Amino acid sequence: MLSNIKIVLVETSHPGNIGAVARAMKNMNLKDLVLVAPKQFPCADATARASGADDILSSALVCDSLQEAVADCSIVVGTSARCRTISWPELTPRECANLLKTEAIDHKAAIVFGREHSGLKNHELDLCRYLLRIPCNKDFSSLNLAAAVQVVSYELFVASGQDYEVTVGDKGKGLLATAAQMEAFYEHMIEALSDIGFMHPDKSKSVMRRLRRIYNRARLESKEVDLLRGILRMSQGNKKKG
Amino acid sequence: MLSNIKIVLVETSHPGNIGAVARAMKNMNLKDLVLVAPKQFPCADATARASGADDILSSALVCDSLQEAVADCSIVVGTSARCRTISWPELTPRECANLLKTEAIDHKAAIVFGREHSGLKNHELDLCRYLLRIPCNKDFSSLNLAAAVQVVSYELFVASGQDYEVTVGDKGKGLLATAAQMEAFYEHMIEALSDIGFMHPDKSKSVMRRLRRIYNRARLESKEVDLLRGILRMSQGNKKKG
Repeated sequence: MLSNIKIVLVETSHPGNIGAVARAMKNMNLKDLVLVAPKQFPCADATARASGADDILSSALVCDSLQEAVADCSIVVGTSARCRTISWPELTPRECANLLKTEAIDHKAAIVFGREHSGLKNHELDLCRYLLRIPCNKDFSSLNLAAAVQVVSYELFVASGQDYEVTVGDKGKGLLATAAQMEAFYEHMIEALSDIGFMHPDKSKSVMRRLRRIYNRARLESKEVDLLRGILRMSQGNKKKG
Repeated sequence: MLSNIKIVLVETSHPGNIGAVARAMKNMNLKDLVLVAPKQFPCADATARASGADDILSSALVCDSLQEAVADCSIVVGTSARCRTISWPELTPRECANLLKTEAIDHKAAIVFGREHSGLKNHELDLCRYLLRIPCNKDFSSLNLAAAVQVVSYELFVASGQDYEVTVGDKGKGLLATAAQMEAFYEHMIEALSDIGFMHPDKSKSVMRRLRRIYNRARLESKEVDLLRGILRMSQGNKKKG
């Protein structure tokens, strides 16, 4: 899906924005960048802001017109911050990503971003099948060009299902404690809390309920139970020595 | 919800990024920006890149430490591009937005972004209850700072616009502990664990990190922190008596 989607920038004024767009694309695994009549390209500013996404810049295609840029695409989505007087079929970035998730498997698609200050012209929108609008503060609705590309690319990436492994951070995570281990832990806790004089075992019901709520919520691992019981043991030791 | 969420930037090197962050925030109706030890601020570069979000910059709070920045927050989310060896409860931007949609109605929340090149340090992550990671190309995973803020703010904005239902299980739930309360709790714990002979304060680092992980995961309420500190006090009392 992502390899069938190109990002098209129309008459970008600031080369720095082109570089930042390349970085945003590469972050989200998009590769095809097309520049329609950029003011200045290639340019050191673009390379600097690309921060390592030079490959996107060096393979970028430069065209004279939007028509040429989207010629091979079946689905062309134009982006706009403004409400247009002509009503266009509108998509949010998420709707667009969901649409392309199925459509961009067999078809080439383009998402077109206009000029920094004036967006796309009506004759350019005529080439677009859909209008994409990023939900935002209606009193301050102009996103930076690269920021807009970032949001749209992010939605495409999430929809593509190439999500990072959610479990990465959990690697090496220990086994969760069993119910039996938890019960033994709570028994130990009652004993220790009584030993340190925090409560009488007979009157422990409501306190223990509150403590159970905390530790059950924490979903303890076996090793963590061992750690906590080590602490309980030490607190008891002092009592017994005391 | 959005008015209870602050964006915290830690030791930002490039003032231009601060401006771009302010713009991204204003686009998405976020207002509270906190800067922890920025290299240069205020700065003309920041104002230029803010492109009209000057109000966010002029009301931005500058702090010396992350601890100070998040002291009044009950929910602190750290962002990271790297996989950490210690497993932290991880959220995607969408999961984070869904969480804050309910939690940030009654509680202040902070989303913390680290340095451009090195992110957040481990002692800063210790202050965070969750780790947020933006799904992206695993071979090119470092987003520009403002681009990362844009993605997260966008998800928050989208979530804020939807109808929410407070889940039944959360009704009548007490207030979550603030970061300052949690830190005081951990300080007290170090003291108590040393008093009962469980560990030396100097050697407490890795044990405390494991304990923090447990209690951060449990998302303690203020009253629960009081309960646990009551237990700590009693365990100390016995030592001192002993």
